[in-house]
Amino acid sequence: MKATRELLAEQGLTVMTVEEVANRAGVGKASIYRRWPNKAALALDAFLDDYLAGIPVRDTGTLRGDLLVSARDWIRLVTRTPAGRTLAALLAETLIDPALAEAWRNVVLHRMRDDRRAIISRAAARGEIPRSTDPDLILDLFYGALYHRFINGHLPLSEGFARALATTVALAATNASRGDVQAIQ
Amino acid sequence: MKATRELLAEQGLTVMTVEEVANRAGVGKASIYRRWPNKAALALDAFLDDYLAGIPVRDTGTLRGDLLVSARDWIRLVTRTPAGRTLAALLAETLIDPALAEAWRNVVLHRMRDDRRAIISRAAARGEIPRSTDPDLILDLFYGALYHRFINGHLPLSEGFARALATTVALAATNASRGDVQAIQ
Repeated sequence: MKATRELLAEQGLTVMTVEEVANRAGVGKASIYRRWPNKAALALDAFLDDYLAGIPVRDTGTLRGDLLVSARDWIRLVTRTPAGRTLAALLAETLIDPALAEAWRNVVLHRMRDDRRAIISRAAARGEIPRSTDPDLILDLFYGALYHRFINGHLPLSEGFARALATTVALAATNASRGDVQAIQ
Repeated sequence: MKATRELLAEQGLTVMTVEEVANRAGVGKASIYRRWPNKAALALDAFLDDYLAGIPVRDTGTLRGDLLVSARDWIRLVTRTPAGRTLAALLAETLIDPALAEAWRNVVLHRMRDDRRAIISRAAARGEIPRSTDPDLILDLFYGALYHRFINGHLPLSEGFARALATTVALAATNASRGDVQAIQ
């Protein structure tokens, strides 16, 4: 894991080889392939701990505050640490490798989701948003917009964007009760 | 272009080669490389017209209505036509090829954005949303959530999701005026 993390930071997933990981770790290639089917699966495991450590769930007392610190942490991680390059390379692999996509969903996305749903359920418990608010829709809006700018690079992941995003998604969660949905449909 | 579109639909970007495109089109490989630096750039050009034709800008008279038909068109295109597989493969390439990422931004994203901003400006002109609403933030929330489910596959791109997304983003656009943003900060 340590050798993989170092090589990911130094070279990136595209350039890194399983042979180099084995050399640096002082083990044979075969012992790596016994546990991971390919270098992307190996990178996914090495990436996960750094990734989750970089975006802790924090409790600021308000939904907008929780979303704002989450946006800032995520933006810092993907724009200022090697995790950003690894994330881009892993996303590229998941788009063309169904087995890795499955691992990505199970390992990264569902673990993150379980953590993040706490932000929404705390807000509902405080009475800030209706209990009927769909946490998945809110998380898709929030992380969807962040990933959209990260993947496409059409607009900056700036502090202003983090603030506007947190405010707008918090307001959307307040209003997107099931009642509103029915009223407007 | 016709040969490229056919091969993209039959084989996908990963398997397709420039040589096959040249053979099917009855031209030499060199004449393709004179115009496109690699197969991804060729695929991007071939993809664009089908993609934009599949997601026309329509005027339903309300912001929620415009967003709902946009979501339905996009979901149909990426889940029920070969454009979905090509989109996934092109996104994967843009994540690891900076030159293609630049072309993607200039050719696809900015052209789409210019089209879609009309949805937001019409809503502002009708008085449905404040004129201060940031169209880019609204479009990042809307397309971000759609792409997020498409890329990660953690939850379905269902009709229910299209409806909830259109409703919630329309409400967010109504409330996310600059005034609200300042009041809450």
